[in-house]
Amino acid sequence: MAFELYYWPGLQGRGEFVRLALEEAGADYVDVARRHDGMVAMNRLLEGDGANRPPYAPPFLKDDDVLVGQTAAILLYLGRKLDLAPRDEQGQLWTHQIQLTIADLVAEAHDCHHPIASSLYYEDQKTEAKRRSADFRDSRIPKYLAWFETVLARNPHGTEHLVGDAITYADLSLFQAVDGLNYAFPIAMARLLSEAPAVAALHTRVARRPRIAAYLPSKRRQPYNEQGIFRHYPELDA
Amino acid sequence: MAFELYYWPGLQGRGEFVRLALEEAGADYVDVARRHDGMVAMNRLLEGDGANRPPYAPPFLKDDDVLVGQTAAILLYLGRKLDLAPRDEQGQLWTHQIQLTIADLVAEAHDCHHPIASSLYYEDQKTEAKRRSADFRDSRIPKYLAWFETVLARNPHGTEHLVGDAITYADLSLFQAVDGLNYAFPIAMARLLSEAPAVAALHTRVARRPRIAAYLPSKRRQPYNEQGIFRHYPELDA
Repeated sequence: MAFELYYWPGLQGRGEFVRLALEEAGADYVDVARRHDGMVAMNRLLEGDGANRPPYAPPFLKDDDVLVGQTAAILLYLGRKLDLAPRDEQGQLWTHQIQLTIADLVAEAHDCHHPIASSLYYEDQKTEAKRRSADFRDSRIPKYLAWFETVLARNPHGTEHLVGDAITYADLSLFQAVDGLNYAFPIAMARLLSEAPAVAALHTRVARRPRIAAYLPSKRRQPYNEQGIFRHYPELDA
Repeated sequence: MAFELYYWPGLQGRGEFVRLALEEAGADYVDVARRHDGMVAMNRLLEGDGANRPPYAPPFLKDDDVLVGQTAAILLYLGRKLDLAPRDEQGQLWTHQIQLTIADLVAEAHDCHHPIASSLYYEDQKTEAKRRSADFRDSRIPKYLAWFETVLARNPHGTEHLVGDAITYADLSLFQAVDGLNYAFPIAMARLLSEAPAVAALHTRVARRPRIAAYLPSKRRQPYNEQGIFRHYPELDA
């Protein structure tokens, strides 16, 4: 049976980290909420109708009788199932640790445009967004990129992958984080990626993987916009 | 060999979620950075001296040759090792999913007093902190508490535990999240917990577990203060 991915239609958001794993693996999946009446099905599960283990929020994934929410937990599950993580437990834990660090970076990227409340409009927190974005560009992105550079440099199998000698969901997620930051902060990222050549090379390499290269220009990949995590507001970039 | 926990001395912080798991299990552990010269050892590992898998930030745990960072990943590891998670894979994934949701709540609690940047003083973002805290108290805490209530209500084994019929690290972490919020937002939490009786009961029950009851008044438990995640600034509560 096909995997069922549930996520808000109209934006990449956190669902995109799951989509990239499914696409890279060539997995059979349905992006449920983008289908006609799909939101009804999503809301039913979100309201936990009858489910003993209701997810807190999208994205969540249904695989037969397994229902799992939280992006990093979904990828922990898919990593084993789709061979997108090492087979040994320590390797899986390390891959997950990297994923959780990428998740922290992504949450900070979101809060750049919503530092006060997700429930308020950007326009109602624009002044605060400018202050937060300046710190994010000057202090936070460089700290994360430096760590990813270190992880790549210390991989005993070489700098091609974050973990071991094969693609993992952590590579796909780092691609997406960098790709999103490039969209949101093009000026800052051009400067910062020149100091993080191994991360920049990983981003390019993932984009060229056959299934990812086929996915990115397809309709299954939703375009960036100012509804998602990564938003391009020129006043927040420098 | 004893577990080695590495975390900033002088505050509970994210390290506390790991401490509670170690304490509940009666595990032999060293809180390295609180020892004389412990910070030297922590910084050495943090700078990744020689480590192929350097942690991004504290807390991290060393167990013989295993080094694991990221609070939720540490608990995923300890859950299996210390019998603080179900034995079946789906149960472990569900416990982890709850932990990741608690981690989201905790990150939001932190950003209440630091909505602009962790690197700035609270006094330099007090106006923004007031705005963010109002939304956190009025919208966010209630949403999380409602979900935990649902999870407890739907546990087929009863409302005593979040998962199954035994204590897990998720119960300990929810205790700590509620305990910290009670310290930071006493007025709001008195009101909100009256609407979340199962969560309030879990908090009370965990505090009375023999090993936790022995730990809480001990010197191993550091007091709350205005350096940690949960800070009591009266102007942020209502």
